[in-house]
Amino acid sequence: MGAGPGQQQTEPPPDPDGLAKMALASRARALLPGARSWGAVLARATTQRAMSHRVVVETDAAAGVAVMKLRNPPVNSLSLEMVTELVINLEKLENDRTVRGLIVTSESPGVFSSGLNLLDMYGRNPAHYAEYWKAVQELWLRLYQCPMVTVATINGACPAGGCLISMTCDYRIMADNSKYTIGLNETQLGIVAPFWFKDTLVNTIGHRASEMSLQLGLLYPPAEALRVGVVDMVVPEDQVHSTALSVMAQWLAIPDHARQLTKAMLRKPTVDNLVRQRDADIQQFVSFISRDSIQKGLQMYLQMLKQKKA
Amino acid sequence: MGAGPGQQQTEPPPDPDGLAKMALASRARALLPGARSWGAVLARATTQRAMSHRVVVETDAAAGVAVMKLRNPPVNSLSLEMVTELVINLEKLENDRTVRGLIVTSESPGVFSSGLNLLDMYGRNPAHYAEYWKAVQELWLRLYQCPMVTVATINGACPAGGCLISMTCDYRIMADNSKYTIGLNETQLGIVAPFWFKDTLVNTIGHRASEMSLQLGLLYPPAEALRVGVVDMVVPEDQVHSTALSVMAQWLAIPDHARQLTKAMLRKPTVDNLVRQRDADIQQFVSFISRDSIQKGLQMYLQMLKQKKA
Amino acid sequence: MGAGPGQQQTEPPPDPDGLAKMALASRARALLPGARSWGAVLARATTQRAMSHRVVVETDAAAGVAVMKLRNPPVNSLSLEMVTELVINLEKLENDRTVRGLIVTSESPGVFSSGLNLLDMYGRNPAHYAEYWKAVQELWLRLYQCPMVTVATINGACPAGGCLISMTCDYRIMADNSKYTIGLNETQLGIVAPFWFKDTLVNTIGHRASEMSLQLGLLYPPAEALRVGVVDMVVPEDQVHSTALSVMAQWLAIPDHARQLTKAMLRKPTVDNLVRQRDADIQQFVSFISRDSIQKGLQMYLQMLKQKKA
Repeated sequence: MGAGPGQQQTEPPPDPDGLAKMALASRARALLPGARSWGAVLARATTQRAMSHRVVVETDAAAGVAVMKLRNPPVNSLSLEMVTELVINLEKLENDRTVRGLIVTSESPGVFSSGLNLLDMYGRNPAHYAEYWKAVQELWLRLYQCPMVTVATINGACPAGGCLISMTCDYRIMADNSKYTIGLNETQLGIVAPFWFKDTLVNTIGHRASEMSLQLGLLYPPAEALRVGVVDMVVPEDQVHSTALSVMAQWLAIPDHARQLTKAMLRKPTVDNLVRQRDADIQQFVSFISRDSIQKGLQMYLQMLKQKKA
Repeated sequence: MGAGPGQQQTEPPPDPDGLAKMALASRARALLPGARSWGAVLARATTQRAMSHRVVVETDAAAGVAVMKLRNPPVNSLSLEMVTELVINLEKLENDRTVRGLIVTSESPGVFSSGLNLLDMYGRNPAHYAEYWKAVQELWLRLYQCPMVTVATINGACPAGGCLISMTCDYRIMADNSKYTIGLNETQLGIVAPFWFKDTLVNTIGHRASEMSLQLGLLYPPAEALRVGVVDMVVPEDQVHSTALSVMAQWLAIPDHARQLTKAMLRKPTVDNLVRQRDADIQQFVSFISRDSIQKGLQMYLQMLKQKKA
Repeated sequence: MGAGPGQQQTEPPPDPDGLAKMALASRARALLPGARSWGAVLARATTQRAMSHRVVVETDAAAGVAVMKLRNPPVNSLSLEMVTELVINLEKLENDRTVRGLIVTSESPGVFSSGLNLLDMYGRNPAHYAEYWKAVQELWLRLYQCPMVTVATINGACPAGGCLISMTCDYRIMADNSKYTIGLNETQLGIVAPFWFKDTLVNTIGHRASEMSLQLGLLYPPAEALRVGVVDMVVPEDQVHSTALSVMAQWLAIPDHARQLTKAMLRKPTVDNLVRQRDADIQQFVSFISRDSIQKGLQMYLQMLKQKKA
């Protein structure tokens, strides 16, 4: 970010109590009504605060640009805690009038984000699945409607939920590294991308390309990602950030108010589509993920991942 | 299909009576309620059984792939009988757990399918038009929602209804022969593709290309068909089938359940659009096709075709 | 238009009274109900008739093609009077059975149209804003649903409302002159293209390209306009009109009836989207444009334009 950007980590905050309460309020709003007591939320959050630092935000107030770095090693898995921290940070940035643009990137080498956290979808109870899904919905709703200009620099592997995050941004720049791929590959794991993942993809690459992409669970290397339109630009890895700053400058030349209204107009129908049926979508996720066949499939997949590591 | 695929013709079935009844039940369900008595359906179907063989199905149980060959010479016209046989065969295949993929192709040299049968739209009574249209709707509904992976090998001319059938498939491979063209050319005949033909085209090539394509009734030769996106691949004519088998293998590598749910999610809005107004669409077709001006136009076109032959 | 096209200017009409009344009826229908008395409409229109000639129509009855030339110097600004004249001329042409095709072009050198007239949006009262917006809606509704084949020859700069007019046409041919650009650049002026401008753009270039295009207020030079799909063809400037005639001939080879029904089917959902909420859209425009911040922005922009000239 050049000289002098202040590094502002999510936690510990300058006023831990105040910030924690804000975060809790946000978190609480995101919970299913009645899913747990307010006290339980507070108690749990206190624990989480100590586990934090999964999201690092650096703000260049002069430029009006913040960089939000995913740092949940080893693969920036979107665990419930990670998703919650992302939502809290987005809320803070939206309320910060000095920040007009946001660059989303990864600090974990070789991975933008591996996507949703399988351990939040396997072997837990329905209340946990529901809480997790509500948080993932909340993250998408905030990112897709973000009033800031959002640019994703895809500097690593970007499957499934990682791809979703990048697709919510206004612009996507991918590092030209053939080891990185991007796409919604859910079917390859025997699961199904929900309709709002699908809507986001269709808005990005069109209906026909989405049919192929989603059914086959395609992961595109950089050149193909550019061709199909899932990213807007491919540049050498060491130029990803400087390119993002140039792109951001172009977008920030547009009056915020007009750009924000235009963005909202374009995305509102897709957002409304989820908002209208948010609870039903949670119920459907819980019911789907709780099936024996799906749990067994995830178990096999997790074992395979473990053996790969070993 | 390699070694050992069983050639299974539509008729006669191993148990003619049982199969005929199943087919009849299907056919009866497809009829307009009250359009004719059950007895009349049975009587007519008995006759039709002897006229059959318009659709040939070869199944390679080991690979889990069936090939459905259109064989209604000379041009695979989608007559009421042909449409009915296609529906019956699709229903049988859907109920066959050993079949996961379906290749749709033509056995009539030089023609994939000439599309809807003008003789079912000219000089008949409203009840016939209604029965015909209901059957065409049924064919589209089954193909577009087919739980199997569907690949079309377009090994001949593919106008109008032929193009529609191929567009319902998950993937389209066209033979590289400049004599073959593909497109919804209805306006060239003075008729109008119904909205669900239009929806299928828009889902395939987008709104703008559909405006040009439908209004001008464009028929694309292979290279242009590929460019506009109405087909996914163009290969030398003698490689069409082997390419289809390779493509099929790629699609069958995806768990059926996840792929089927994803396909249903992507296509449901388009399907619902017809299901919601199926009867109104039939009434509109009957009323449109019954007009003097349309009948006169079809008569002229049919005479022109006759003179061409002579 | 070759030999013998009759040059028919908007005004004075052969039968001034009859035509004026027709025009008035049309104009009156377009007004907000109760916005002004019928007598006031008559009185005002009488004045306007004398100020006319902003639209020149030349008809080649033999070819069945009319050319409508925008002639509101210096930049073909879409003032209330200009918009009204365009609507009146379109209505006349629609009622002329000899005219099947319409070429829309500019007679003002270097400019197709600069778009909406800022002087109708700045420093006026809410009733004027409402009248203006209703007229702009009416123009779009007529052009987008025009039963004639419509071809735009973009022989000059084509921002904002100019781009909208060209996008309503069935085909767009742009002169290959790097000084000309085309696009919906509203955000650059701090204002927002309404949803039906957006819908028209999405129908033309798809959702993703529209996101970039609208948010950044992009103006595309010819080659880029062709690549993104906002125009269909780029030709040398002196070939724009002859190319339009060739393209028109291709479109006129299609039976009118079938083409018109197909066009209506493709565009009806987008049209209905405005018709359903036409009054609300007017109210929203009036309220938006009346804001102090927007008025101040327009004032600054107008001053800047004045200084450029001086």
